[in-house]
Amino acid sequence: MIIVMKAGAAKKDRDEVIKRIKELGYKPHVIHGTTRDVIGAVGDERGKLVLQSIESMHGVESVVPILKPYKLASKEVKVEPSIIRISDAVSIGGKEIIVMAGPCSVEGEEQIIETAKAVKAAGAQVLRGGAFKPRTSPYSFQGLEEEGLKLLAKAREITGLPIVTEVVNPETADLVAEYSDILQIGARNAQNFALLKKVGQLRRPVLLKRGMSMTIQEFLMSAEYVMSEGNQSVILCERGIRTFETATRNTLDLSAIPVLKGMTHLPVIADPSHGTGNYHYVAPMALAAVAAGADGLMIEVHPDPERASSDGPQSLKPKKFDALMTKLRLVAESVDRAI
Amino acid sequence: MIIVMKAGAAKKDRDEVIKRIKELGYKPHVIHGTTRDVIGAVGDERGKLVLQSIESMHGVESVVPILKPYKLASKEVKVEPSIIRISDAVSIGGKEIIVMAGPCSVEGEEQIIETAKAVKAAGAQVLRGGAFKPRTSPYSFQGLEEEGLKLLAKAREITGLPIVTEVVNPETADLVAEYSDILQIGARNAQNFALLKKVGQLRRPVLLKRGMSMTIQEFLMSAEYVMSEGNQSVILCERGIRTFETATRNTLDLSAIPVLKGMTHLPVIADPSHGTGNYHYVAPMALAAVAAGADGLMIEVHPDPERASSDGPQSLKPKKFDALMTKLRLVAESVDRAI
Amino acid sequence: MIIVMKAGAAKKDRDEVIKRIKELGYKPHVIHGTTRDVIGAVGDERGKLVLQSIESMHGVESVVPILKPYKLASKEVKVEPSIIRISDAVSIGGKEIIVMAGPCSVEGEEQIIETAKAVKAAGAQVLRGGAFKPRTSPYSFQGLEEEGLKLLAKAREITGLPIVTEVVNPETADLVAEYSDILQIGARNAQNFALLKKVGQLRRPVLLKRGMSMTIQEFLMSAEYVMSEGNQSVILCERGIRTFETATRNTLDLSAIPVLKGMTHLPVIADPSHGTGNYHYVAPMALAAVAAGADGLMIEVHPDPERASSDGPQSLKPKKFDALMTKLRLVAESVDRAI
Amino acid sequence: MIIVMKAGAAKKDRDEVIKRIKELGYKPHVIHGTTRDVIGAVGDERGKLVLQSIESMHGVESVVPILKPYKLASKEVKVEPSIIRISDAVSIGGKEIIVMAGPCSVEGEEQIIETAKAVKAAGAQVLRGGAFKPRTSPYSFQGLEEEGLKLLAKAREITGLPIVTEVVNPETADLVAEYSDILQIGARNAQNFALLKKVGQLRRPVLLKRGMSMTIQEFLMSAEYVMSEGNQSVILCERGIRTFETATRNTLDLSAIPVLKGMTHLPVIADPSHGTGNYHYVAPMALAAVAAGADGLMIEVHPDPERASSDGPQSLKPKKFDALMTKLRLVAESVDRAI
Repeated sequence: MIIVMKAGAAKKDRDEVIKRIKELGYKPHVIHGTTRDVIGAVGDERGKLVLQSIESMHGVESVVPILKPYKLASKEVKVEPSIIRISDAVSIGGKEIIVMAGPCSVEGEEQIIETAKAVKAAGAQVLRGGAFKPRTSPYSFQGLEEEGLKLLAKAREITGLPIVTEVVNPETADLVAEYSDILQIGARNAQNFALLKKVGQLRRPVLLKRGMSMTIQEFLMSAEYVMSEGNQSVILCERGIRTFETATRNTLDLSAIPVLKGMTHLPVIADPSHGTGNYHYVAPMALAAVAAGADGLMIEVHPDPERASSDGPQSLKPKKFDALMTKLRLVAESVDRAI
Repeated sequence: MIIVMKAGAAKKDRDEVIKRIKELGYKPHVIHGTTRDVIGAVGDERGKLVLQSIESMHGVESVVPILKPYKLASKEVKVEPSIIRISDAVSIGGKEIIVMAGPCSVEGEEQIIETAKAVKAAGAQVLRGGAFKPRTSPYSFQGLEEEGLKLLAKAREITGLPIVTEVVNPETADLVAEYSDILQIGARNAQNFALLKKVGQLRRPVLLKRGMSMTIQEFLMSAEYVMSEGNQSVILCERGIRTFETATRNTLDLSAIPVLKGMTHLPVIADPSHGTGNYHYVAPMALAAVAAGADGLMIEVHPDPERASSDGPQSLKPKKFDALMTKLRLVAESVDRAI
Repeated sequence: MIIVMKAGAAKKDRDEVIKRIKELGYKPHVIHGTTRDVIGAVGDERGKLVLQSIESMHGVESVVPILKPYKLASKEVKVEPSIIRISDAVSIGGKEIIVMAGPCSVEGEEQIIETAKAVKAAGAQVLRGGAFKPRTSPYSFQGLEEEGLKLLAKAREITGLPIVTEVVNPETADLVAEYSDILQIGARNAQNFALLKKVGQLRRPVLLKRGMSMTIQEFLMSAEYVMSEGNQSVILCERGIRTFETATRNTLDLSAIPVLKGMTHLPVIADPSHGTGNYHYVAPMALAAVAAGADGLMIEVHPDPERASSDGPQSLKPKKFDALMTKLRLVAESVDRAI
Repeated sequence: MIIVMKAGAAKKDRDEVIKRIKELGYKPHVIHGTTRDVIGAVGDERGKLVLQSIESMHGVESVVPILKPYKLASKEVKVEPSIIRISDAVSIGGKEIIVMAGPCSVEGEEQIIETAKAVKAAGAQVLRGGAFKPRTSPYSFQGLEEEGLKLLAKAREITGLPIVTEVVNPETADLVAEYSDILQIGARNAQNFALLKKVGQLRRPVLLKRGMSMTIQEFLMSAEYVMSEGNQSVILCERGIRTFETATRNTLDLSAIPVLKGMTHLPVIADPSHGTGNYHYVAPMALAAVAAGADGLMIEVHPDPERASSDGPQSLKPKKFDALMTKLRLVAESVDRAI
C-alpha cells in the first residue's frame, strides 16, 4: 500500500503515519518527492483492510492499494484455467463453448419440455429456467417455486441436459441444490453476502452473475466469498452493466471477458439476452462474446415470447436459436474453439 | 400503456396487437399518426406486466408504460406525508429532522457507549451501529453479530436513544428485530427480494437504502415489496449512486429528495457519510440535504476513526459532529424545519 | 407525441393542453384512461421541439416523443445501407471490412512512414494518424499540426493508403481537408455543433466518433448536423462510453453496432484501442466488433509504444497487428464478410 | 509517479523500467514488496506525461500518478480563494452569493427586457441569456446570434445588470466578447480545446460548465487550458452529470462543490435548472447548492415557459423566482453567506 502525503505536510504528521504503519505490522519505506512524500507500507495488506483507515490521519492525501484483494480467484494462486465439471458429459472452461438455453421462467410442463427438446436439438448443452424469480415488482409473476424445480428435473430426465436455475434465498438454497446441477446467483443478489456464503457451503457449481453496477474487482470479490467457503466451482457471467444508455436494457460489457481472463482462472460466460433486453440484438452479441473469448453463453429461448410470463422481448424463438447456433459454430471455429 | 407501431407496419400486424390487447383485458384505442400508428391500451396495467411482452410482436417498435408500477408507496394512494413512529419520543416525517448517528460497526462496549453518549449530547435522536456487516471482502471484519446487538441494546438503555442496525439475511431478521427499533436494509440488499419480503412481515420500521444503481422508480418498487407484505413503515434513504466520478466514493444524488417527495408519502433521509466516503465532505452535504428537504440524516461518528474496523475515512469525530449539529439547526430553521 | 396528464388533473388543465396542441398545428386525440388521460398530438413533431414545453403546463405529468428526431440518418428515409467511397480503391459499408490503422500521433517522418508500410503490409486499407491532437492537458504534446499533415500525405504517396486525421477547429478544417481523405471528429467534439456544421460543408467523408456520454440517439443527431449541411458521407465510430468501470479506459459498447444498424443506413465501425485503453484487450475486442457486425475498425499501431507521445499503452506493435489481421480475416469470413 | 510491477516480474524487466525512468529525467526509488516490486519515480511528472507510456513496458502492471496534472488552478499555487470581478458592482468568490438568472434563449426584445427587470427586482446580480445556442438537433431553434447579443446589451443598459452568454465557436468569440461581461463555455464544449484556448486569450471572465461525463480532475484541466493562455478569471459551474437515472435530466453532483473547494482557488457555482431539467426541483436544489458552499447560482427564468423556444420545462416564472430568492437569503445567512 502506498500512502501519499499532502504537499507540505508536517514532518510530525509523516512520523505519526510511519508509527501507525509499524503498529499494524508493515514495514514503512519513505520516498521524498519534489513536492510531497510518499510512503510505501510493505507487507500483505489483504485481511488487514484497516490500513485504509490511515486515510483519515492528518496530513494524508490518499491511500493507494497495491495488492489485489482477492486470492483464491486470482491467477497468482492458480495459473492454468479452471475446468468446471457440470455433469458426466459437460464441463466448462476448456476448448468447448457451453451454451445454456431455455426460458426465463418455467411456466408449465409443456412449455419447459418443448423448449428443452428444442434447445437440445439445436446443440445447447445446459437447460436454463427460473423457478424462483426475483422480480422488480411484487405484483409480477414470482415463479412456480418447487413445482418449477420438479418440472426442470423432468425436462432433464427426458433430454439428458443438466439444468441451471436461480437461488434467491439462503433458506431455500438446499432445496434448489437438490434439483439443480448449477446454482445461479442473479445480478441483484451479486453482493448478497449471506447467500454467497450459503452457496459456498454447497457442493454444486455456482453461476455468478455480475451485479448491475459492480466493478470487475468487486465481481471477483463476490466469487471469493463463494470460494472462501470451500466451493471452488464458480462460473462468472457478464450480463450487462447499468449505464446512461437506454437503447439497450443494460450495456453488455464484453471487454470484461478479456479483462477477467487476465485476472482469474475461472471460466467466463456472457448473457446477451439480459445484456441487451431485445431479441434483435441477441445473435450479434452472442457471436461477439464468443469472438471476445467467452467460455459459454446463456441465452433465453421461449416457444411463444409474446405470451411469456417474463422477459418476452429478449427471448428467441427456437427456430431463431437454431439459426444462431449454426453461426456460433463458425465463429467458434474461427477463434479456435468448438461448440 | 402505449404501443408504438413501426413506421409502415402492416395493417395485419396492427390487428394482431389489437387482438392481443383485448385478450389481456384492455381496451385498445388507435391513433393514426402521420408516419405510424400508436395504440393506447386502457386498463389497470399493474400486476399484468405481461403486457410488456407485446414488445416482441411483429411490427411493434416500442411499448411505453403510463401507470407507475407502485401503488402503496404512491401519493395517489395516500396524499399526506407519512409520519413514522420510531419510539415514544421519536417520529420521522414531520417538521422535526431526525439525525441518526453512530459508528459504522459496533466494535466493543466502550466504543459504542462512548459514541452513543456523544451523539446524544450533540442532539442526535437515534443511534446507528452495525452488528452484521455486509463487507465487499470475505476477509474484512464481518461484525460482532448478536454480541453487537446486545451492546447496542445496552447503549439504548443508558442513553434512551432508539437504535437502527442492519439486517443481512432473512434467517437472522427475527433476531435483529428483537433488539433493534429500526431494521436497516443496506444498498447491496436493496433488491434482495427475499429479505424485503421478510422485513415486510415484521413489525418494525424499515430503513431502506437506495441501491447503488437503482433508479428512483426501482427504489419505490423495493419499498412496495415491504409494504405489500403489510409493513407500511418504510423510511427511504438516499446514500449515493454509482457514477463515473471517483473523487467521491459514490455520487450523493440529492435531487432524489425532491423527486421522491413528489412521488411518495414516505419520509426520505440522506446518508452523506456513505454518499461521499470522505469526512471532509460530510458536513456540506448534510447541510445541503436538509436544505433540499430531507426528513433526516444518517451520519457516521467514531471516537477514533484512524482505528475504526470499517469506514474510518468517512467518520466524523464527536467534536466535529457536534459542530455540524449546530450548523444543521440553523439551516433547518432557514427552511422552516427543526432539529 | 403523447402527453400524459396527472392522475386527477382538472378538465380545465386538459382543455388548456388541447388548445395549445392545436395552436402548435397538431391534431389532439384524447384517450380516457382508468386513472388519467393521455393525449396524442398527431403531426410531424420534428423541427417543432417546442412541443416539449407543454411539459411545463399545469396538470401535465410527462411528454413522450414518438417520432425519432433524426431524418437524413434514418432508415425511414433510406432503407439500403450507404456505401461511402474513400478513394478509388476503398469504400466502406459493403461486404468488405475496412481497417484503419496507424499511430495515435504523427511524431516524425520515419515513424509515420515505417508504420504506414507495416500496416499496409498487414492488410490495413486506411492510414490513421493525428496531426492536431485534442489532449486533456494543455501541457501534453498537441501534435505536429500542418507539418504532421504533410507527413501523412507523404506516407499516402509512398503506400497508396488513403488517410484519416482529426479536425479540432472550424478555422483549420479547410487546411485538414486539403490533405486528408477522411475528416475525423473526436469524441470530445462530438457535440461541437460549430465544427459539425463546418465539416458538413466540406466535400470529404466524415468519421464521427461517439461522445463519451452520448446516447445512440444523440449520436445520430450529431450525424444529422453534418448531413443537414449537405455532406451525406458520415461513418459512425463506437469508441467506448464512460461508465463506472475503471478496469478499461472506457467501456466499448459493442451493442451499439446492431442497435445503430437497426436505426441508420450509415456504416458503423469500432475503435477497440480507445475503447479499452490497453493493448492486451485490443485483439479480442476487434474480433468481437467484427462478429457483432461492424463495417470497419480503427486500431492504433506504433513501432515503439513505450516511447509514443500519446496513447502508448493502447498501441499494438506492428507484429501484433499483423497477427490480429490474420485472425480478423477468419472471423470476418465466419460472419460472411471479408477483409 | 509509482510504477507497480507484476507479481513475479523478471529482474530484467525491472531494470529496463529503471533505465527508462532515468532516461526521462526522474530518479527511481525501488520498494521490494512481499509479492512484487514498486518503483517510485521522483521528479515533476507534469508536462512529461509520456511517463504514462511506461505502462506498455514488459512486466509492468500499472502506473499510478501522484502529482495532480493541473497547476494554475490548484490550491498549491494559490491558497486563498480567487475573487473574480465581473463589473464595478459585482464580484464572485467572496462572501456574497451571486445569482445569474434569465431565459435559456434570448427570443425577442420584450421577453429579455421584461425578464431582466424581473430578475433584477428579485435580487439577481447577473443576467443570463443565450444568443448562440448549441442544440442537440439541427432542426431546433439555434438562437438569434448577433441580434440576441444586441438585445442583451440593451437589457444591461436598462437594468445595469452585467450579462453572461455562451460562446460556441472560436470564430465568433471576439464578437461575443464585445457584448458580454462573462463568456460562458457550455457543457458540450467543455473539452473543445480550440475554444478553451481562444477564450483564454480574451480579457473577459469565463464561466466554464462541467461536461456531462467529465471527472472533477478533467474539469480542472479544462480550466487549466483557459488559464495557461493567460486568463485567470475562470468560474466553475456544476450543471449535472450523466448517470443511469432518468427521473432528472442530469444528476446534479453537489458534492463536486466541496470537492472542488478543496482542490482549487476558483469560485464554484451550480446550475440547478440544467442539473434537474424540471422547474419543480430547481428551488430545493438551489437551496442545497448554497448550503453545500456554492459561490453562486445560474437559474433559468422565463415569463412564459410554456412558449419558450428552449428549456421551457426547467424555467421558473418570475414570481416563483422571486419566492426562491427570499428563501435563498435565509439559507445563505444560515451558512454565513449573503445575497
